[in-house]
Amino acid sequence: MTSDQSPDAVKRAGNEEPPRSGRGVSRRGLLGLVSAGAAGLAAGAAGGAALTTGLPALSGAGPVGTTTYPFYGEHQSGITTPAQDRLHFAAFTVSPSLDRVGLIELLSDWTVAAARLTAGLDVSEEGALGGPDVAPPDDTGEALELPASGLTLTFGFGPGLFEDADGADRFGIAVRRPPGLAQLPRFAGDALRPEWSGGDLCIQACADDPQVAVHAIRNLSRIAFGRASISWSQLGFGRTSSTSTAQTTPRNLFGFKDGTANLKLEDRAAVDEWVWAAHDDVAWMRGGSYLVTRKIRMVIEVWDRQQRVEQERVIGRSKGEGAPLSGGSEFSEPVFDAEGATGEPLIDPTSHVRRAHPSNVGGVRLLRRGYNYVDGSDPLGTLDAGLFFISFQRSVDAFVTVQNAIATDALAEYLKHVGSAVFAVPPGAREGGFVGEGLFGS
Amino acid sequence: MTSDQSPDAVKRAGNEEPPRSGRGVSRRGLLGLVSAGAAGLAAGAAGGAALTTGLPALSGAGPVGTTTYPFYGEHQSGITTPAQDRLHFAAFTVSPSLDRVGLIELLSDWTVAAARLTAGLDVSEEGALGGPDVAPPDDTGEALELPASGLTLTFGFGPGLFEDADGADRFGIAVRRPPGLAQLPRFAGDALRPEWSGGDLCIQACADDPQVAVHAIRNLSRIAFGRASISWSQLGFGRTSSTSTAQTTPRNLFGFKDGTANLKLEDRAAVDEWVWAAHDDVAWMRGGSYLVTRKIRMVIEVWDRQQRVEQERVIGRSKGEGAPLSGGSEFSEPVFDAEGATGEPLIDPTSHVRRAHPSNVGGVRLLRRGYNYVDGSDPLGTLDAGLFFISFQRSVDAFVTVQNAIATDALAEYLKHVGSAVFAVPPGAREGGFVGEGLFGS
Repeated sequence: MTSDQSPDAVKRAGNEEPPRSGRGVSRRGLLGLVSAGAAGLAAGAAGGAALTTGLPALSGAGPVGTTTYPFYGEHQSGITTPAQDRLHFAAFTVSPSLDRVGLIELLSDWTVAAARLTAGLDVSEEGALGGPDVAPPDDTGEALELPASGLTLTFGFGPGLFEDADGADRFGIAVRRPPGLAQLPRFAGDALRPEWSGGDLCIQACADDPQVAVHAIRNLSRIAFGRASISWSQLGFGRTSSTSTAQTTPRNLFGFKDGTANLKLEDRAAVDEWVWAAHDDVAWMRGGSYLVTRKIRMVIEVWDRQQRVEQERVIGRSKGEGAPLSGGSEFSEPVFDAEGATGEPLIDPTSHVRRAHPSNVGGVRLLRRGYNYVDGSDPLGTLDAGLFFISFQRSVDAFVTVQNAIATDALAEYLKHVGSAVFAVPPGAREGGFVGEGLFGS
Repeated sequence: MTSDQSPDAVKRAGNEEPPRSGRGVSRRGLLGLVSAGAAGLAAGAAGGAALTTGLPALSGAGPVGTTTYPFYGEHQSGITTPAQDRLHFAAFTVSPSLDRVGLIELLSDWTVAAARLTAGLDVSEEGALGGPDVAPPDDTGEALELPASGLTLTFGFGPGLFEDADGADRFGIAVRRPPGLAQLPRFAGDALRPEWSGGDLCIQACADDPQVAVHAIRNLSRIAFGRASISWSQLGFGRTSSTSTAQTTPRNLFGFKDGTANLKLEDRAAVDEWVWAAHDDVAWMRGGSYLVTRKIRMVIEVWDRQQRVEQERVIGRSKGEGAPLSGGSEFSEPVFDAEGATGEPLIDPTSHVRRAHPSNVGGVRLLRRGYNYVDGSDPLGTLDAGLFFISFQRSVDAFVTVQNAIATDALAEYLKHVGSAVFAVPPGAREGGFVGEGLFGS
């Protein structure tokens, strides 16, 4: 196995395996081998082991898009993995007829498929062209010839899985509901819509090619047919934070660098403290995390009418470099008691950077992993656009602490929270097991 | 100037200028120069000439994303330009108060801004950080540091510009309405929604980075404030056709290669015959084209339940290679009278490839340039997804001929046309002029 020479070649903190790169694992390559009669390799690749360790060594770094991240490991990928460029996030509602055995089967099926998809393979060994002509192909085919493109698939369990709307414990897991999985309170400025909120299960698909992320969600949704169905899904087109010091800080739709002070995977101690489930949480969540999504509509036309200095006051950073207004460069620590010539604070006390700073929220930190979205335009001709906020943290309460601090900051005036969901994200699956297996163990 | 060594380095048929590549034209590079005091270059770059010919030669091929296409020329870019990977398309309604002078000013302002944006610059010389603090910055800033990413901006005029809803000729251009700009008839299977249909003006933004395409539409929409506003817009995430023999054929959401038999820019004679406005059209449309958009929802869940052989019967091509069912490989010509062992036609007479083939539509050909879209999920849990179809042709009637032939083909059962629009796309602007100038000349 060769190490990836691309800019994204960052060692994953949660899993010592580096991302892999090479032509040999692309769907096209596999297709060629199969049609040439080398079906043995395809069969071998259907097991989890082959995907992470068993494929032949590949020469040199591949073209853009051939990065792969392992599916199995201590933690799920897609959390500390260097944030990819594109997102398709899906929330699912479980079928009323689904029982404990059925849920375990669904998670097992999803695990096998996810290990294949993240390796750049079709969803099943049969492939996109199907086996016997009497059945539809397992794979829908639109990702044929496309490499893995850094795909990660991250699974989560919503509160409804532990207690359904009727208060029933359908899956026999209520006693194992983790304390970290709180429901969110109502925040100032919430304008939540049910069509972008909640969910019994979720899958976060991140990749550097949107077609690959969409293909994964579509095929995992097909696998769930009759057992769970998508209640809402969201596409995101540009990451709005960095999760690695090897990445440059991107800009959000307000034109500001976003994620400068985000948790980075290289800061292993901080990730261990703030991302992975707290040590006093339930045992099956060890190595897991908690995921919060907030669909945040940005009132960008009003924002665009503000002077740059006003925008900078609201954020607390310069628009160009992203430096705190107390001085320095992008990664300088803000100095909140710094004053200007007339004694005014250089960083406004209501600014976003001040309110969200760990010093203002009891030290709490989040790993943000959100994406810009544009859902077209609304009837008034304004862009229906904003931030699909995603964060991972040690407990939902950690998010609540931060959100309470920023819900009335100077930036909140330009935001409308229209969607919201929380999920417990179990640790990574072991090869031969399934994601969330610990929840159902003895 | 150096030639681009990337796979997209294809000479444009309509404009002999090759795409350009290099670090020197990025917003970051310019920002650095300006802050270093070299404001003269920025001022020089504001004129059209500097953007296409006046910048210094750049060494070697740049990183992915630095390809630029010239804005000025015989034809608008974004038609025969090798199809980029991402789309943001916007339709505009003109303000009731806009008059002829105001429309010309808007088109002039858009032209200057488009020349800058396609060169990878901020929307105005003032830049994303603004000039005097009293005014908001001209540029919204989210594309700072991003290269041109192959951005093209293509402008079109809808029927309503020539005669408004009250039948008035507000801009004094009714006599110049081109015969090529017909309104579409109603087709079998149409389920058109006004919120995705029509428009007085349009801008097609294509780029290899969606943030760059979104940034362009947003800033051009800001420039239009008070004069025109977006009536609808659409994001597309994966091209569904090739417009150059140097590109591989992509797959649509049905999992099939799409665009195999599309017009390619290298076939100059066919492009001249079928893409550019017909020779008997009005003089100001010489070098222009006609643009049709159709938002086509795909019923992909039903499609996914079909056997591969049935899917192939419907399309008339194999799913793997995309070869016609009469045999050969992807680019083999289909043989419609080829028969199987029992005398049945190998290509079904109702198949999409048969119905759309030039031999079935009087030789008519279209240049297709559509994109996949996913707008999330509908309340039934199915993906709200499909094809945002775009085609350029010598007249709207050419599209009508083809659409009538395929509106009842075997594929139509899996499609629902929910949006529709037509635009006259004027020829390229000359440096110092504005797009559509010929429409207003003496």
